[in-house]
Amino acid sequence: MRVDLLVLAPHVLTMAGDGVGYRAGVAMAVDRGRIVDLGDAAGAAERYRADETLSLPHHLVLPGLIDAHLHTGCCILRGLAQDTRHWMMYGLQPFDNAVRQEDRDTGSLLAILEAVQAGTTTLGDYGEDMEAVCAAVERIGVRGHLTQLIREVERRVYGPDELYPFTPALGRQLLDRNLSLYDRWNGRADGRIRILFGPQAADFLSEPLLQEVRRAAVERGARIHMHVQQGDRETRQIMMRYGRRPIAWLGEIGFLDEHLIAVHLTDADDREAAEVARSGAAMILCPGSIGLIDGILPPAAAFQAAGGRCGLGTDQAAGNNGTNMFNEMKAVCLFTKLKHQDPELMPAWRALRMATIENARAIGLGDQVGSLEAGKRADFIAVDLRRASMLPVHLEPMRNLVPNLVYSARGPEVVLAAVDGRVIMRDGEVAGIDREELCDRVNACARGIGERAAREFREVDGVGARFMRMGRL
Amino acid sequence: MRVDLLVLAPHVLTMAGDGVGYRAGVAMAVDRGRIVDLGDAAGAAERYRADETLSLPHHLVLPGLIDAHLHTGCCILRGLAQDTRHWMMYGLQPFDNAVRQEDRDTGSLLAILEAVQAGTTTLGDYGEDMEAVCAAVERIGVRGHLTQLIREVERRVYGPDELYPFTPALGRQLLDRNLSLYDRWNGRADGRIRILFGPQAADFLSEPLLQEVRRAAVERGARIHMHVQQGDRETRQIMMRYGRRPIAWLGEIGFLDEHLIAVHLTDADDREAAEVARSGAAMILCPGSIGLIDGILPPAAAFQAAGGRCGLGTDQAAGNNGTNMFNEMKAVCLFTKLKHQDPELMPAWRALRMATIENARAIGLGDQVGSLEAGKRADFIAVDLRRASMLPVHLEPMRNLVPNLVYSARGPEVVLAAVDGRVIMRDGEVAGIDREELCDRVNACARGIGERAAREFREVDGVGARFMRMGRL
Repeated sequence: MRVDLLVLAPHVLTMAGDGVGYRAGVAMAVDRGRIVDLGDAAGAAERYRADETLSLPHHLVLPGLIDAHLHTGCCILRGLAQDTRHWMMYGLQPFDNAVRQEDRDTGSLLAILEAVQAGTTTLGDYGEDMEAVCAAVERIGVRGHLTQLIREVERRVYGPDELYPFTPALGRQLLDRNLSLYDRWNGRADGRIRILFGPQAADFLSEPLLQEVRRAAVERGARIHMHVQQGDRETRQIMMRYGRRPIAWLGEIGFLDEHLIAVHLTDADDREAAEVARSGAAMILCPGSIGLIDGILPPAAAFQAAGGRCGLGTDQAAGNNGTNMFNEMKAVCLFTKLKHQDPELMPAWRALRMATIENARAIGLGDQVGSLEAGKRADFIAVDLRRASMLPVHLEPMRNLVPNLVYSARGPEVVLAAVDGRVIMRDGEVAGIDREELCDRVNACARGIGERAAREFREVDGVGARFMRMGRL
Repeated sequence: MRVDLLVLAPHVLTMAGDGVGYRAGVAMAVDRGRIVDLGDAAGAAERYRADETLSLPHHLVLPGLIDAHLHTGCCILRGLAQDTRHWMMYGLQPFDNAVRQEDRDTGSLLAILEAVQAGTTTLGDYGEDMEAVCAAVERIGVRGHLTQLIREVERRVYGPDELYPFTPALGRQLLDRNLSLYDRWNGRADGRIRILFGPQAADFLSEPLLQEVRRAAVERGARIHMHVQQGDRETRQIMMRYGRRPIAWLGEIGFLDEHLIAVHLTDADDREAAEVARSGAAMILCPGSIGLIDGILPPAAAFQAAGGRCGLGTDQAAGNNGTNMFNEMKAVCLFTKLKHQDPELMPAWRALRMATIENARAIGLGDQVGSLEAGKRADFIAVDLRRASMLPVHLEPMRNLVPNLVYSARGPEVVLAAVDGRVIMRDGEVAGIDREELCDRVNACARGIGERAAREFREVDGVGARFMRMGRL
């Protein structure tokens, strides 16, 4: 049988079935971007005539990681909004106000570089102007699950009890942009790009606009990707406006169903999380981000216990400070154990599933990616098992590959990433990104942002400004 | 002025004073292993005649990290004892029983490789046979703060209410080994090696032997490095034996003072932690390890609030699954925020101090290392600021170097490590370690351990065995 590519590896985690689907000595045959067979490595050269053979002799091959929710553009503000309460207002605001679209686009490239270097092959990016990201995803070869942010509320500082006024023209403009983005990009790049609909959160859109967005998404068979009950601010707005908490209200207006990808649930309790799970909506947990900026682990355990599909995301580097899914896998395990003082909760294999097959199912790509099975797209990564953090390799009587991947690996152990069978990263070099040039460019952006943000940064006089005065930065 | 070495860097965190001691454009002059001056980079070539100049043009230089408590030998069992209650008995035991000294020595080399690659320059290693570690430390050039474990209780499985019987001959043998190790190695390798005294824990030694160990240490001006109130098992033993909880009893017998380095305090409450702090004893927190194996963050915040010197350690790769201090810095911040639901607690700069200057003071090396100041040993590391995870570099109005180091860096950003002014690691290559040969050797050890452990592993039938049957590993 003739195929485009034959991948040979001593260890594979297919993530098929309900575990990790470990197989030893595997030949994975890929043709026209799809996996056509996973057989034994022995005798594979006779069974297949491959145009190319990718020999990974001391590697662990597994599905490419999926980052189901992140804002790549915010990467340009990495490290500027931690260790503070109200991080968005007192940490991020002065810098966010100083950011231009070209800064965001440059930040997106940096985030994509960091993510792909650490084995992410599907990016659930979310932003206000996604043109450059679409082009970058097409060029770099990564898979993009991309969302246009829609809000009907102007960006400015609101008092804690001030009801946000709606600006219908803004909402209309952003929904039109979402529709246009969908028309131009959905299905492009050999199907690697999918466009979702992104109402920012229940408090940022009027009910009519929320319903209009929902209809637009459902008509097109597209998902709705939305922050849900992400903080007490949102809860207060919805209580003032409708006399309900956000999840209850979203249920009433018909928003909770399988079309919805609900992100964060930071302010939800276990009962509310279970309600979302039972509705068929998916949940995306961003443990590193919400842990760092709020000191909270959202109720993912209750969501999962109620049978919900829960995936993982990195959120944003301005808060979480990175776009590395190895961080999220470890964080969800450790935070869950700590929250419940039980080391048996959230074992490594479960986190690995959340970063792969469960994430794929959560965002509606379960038939395409997330596991290595015949018929699926050939999105895979290779982990070098000769790196110190992956050693030793114990195989019998117990394999330590999965615990080492989740608890020990840091990201750079991933030495190769492929999407649709095409290698997009090798030894830290990502196709289509000139690392040196990008480094100079992000630092030039940072200087400009700093100059424009300086006055407001000093006026706000938040934790960052105090730490600068105290010699703590 | 003639010096051995001139280090030029655009950004330095000296960790002097009570913050992070940031300085821009620094020339650090090193002579005979000591820092003799930190001046401006401008004009440094005229002020010094240096035998060697180390130019680090896009790097951040800071003190080498200190890992105050780890068991390097356990690295040979990485990934075999997670996600289980009673990890030591049901996870580790079958494998630990199958380990030979040469396995441990090989594991130690692996742990040292991993640690030094991630910027650790001082290793607080702790084990039963430290000869090979002493030799490795001497050869590799890292700084060793090494402890001989002393116990008076035989290794076997004890029932939950069974009082450990003492075996005085075993205690005597191990104390003699500690004394001999001290005589042969303390102060060796140009003073890089210090030997401590290591009673394993209050429950593993009789009071007379504890007192004898203490006298031996105090006479020599050496520290006592001991696990303290590390679990309910220890608490139960001490309650049965003396009718007190361990910290109370250790206070009564005069063990709590500035000679003691108290590790873990897992089972201590805030009041007990404060009691240890007020005694002058130091505390070493191993957040990643205790979080993973127990689901607990020990009361380090209460210890620090009471004025105690608290450092950080990685503990052991069999539990924590790594010897990377970047993991511990991030873990202590995130776990503290989560425990108290407050993102302002344990900011990045504090964790960086705990891994450097506060750690040095905690273990009694505060006059030698932990900060870059004239008169101290030249132990330093260089972080490549052109790696994705450290970008962008924001300098004004707020510097993001420290948040990025603690929250974003993963370890491999450290591209150079020096001890006593001598480079011991560059681009992941550690002097005196052949990575390829070591890799083969650790995997050979793993195969042997697996063969010898297989029967007991199946008999114990713990979480690992069940996960193997269920396809989750």
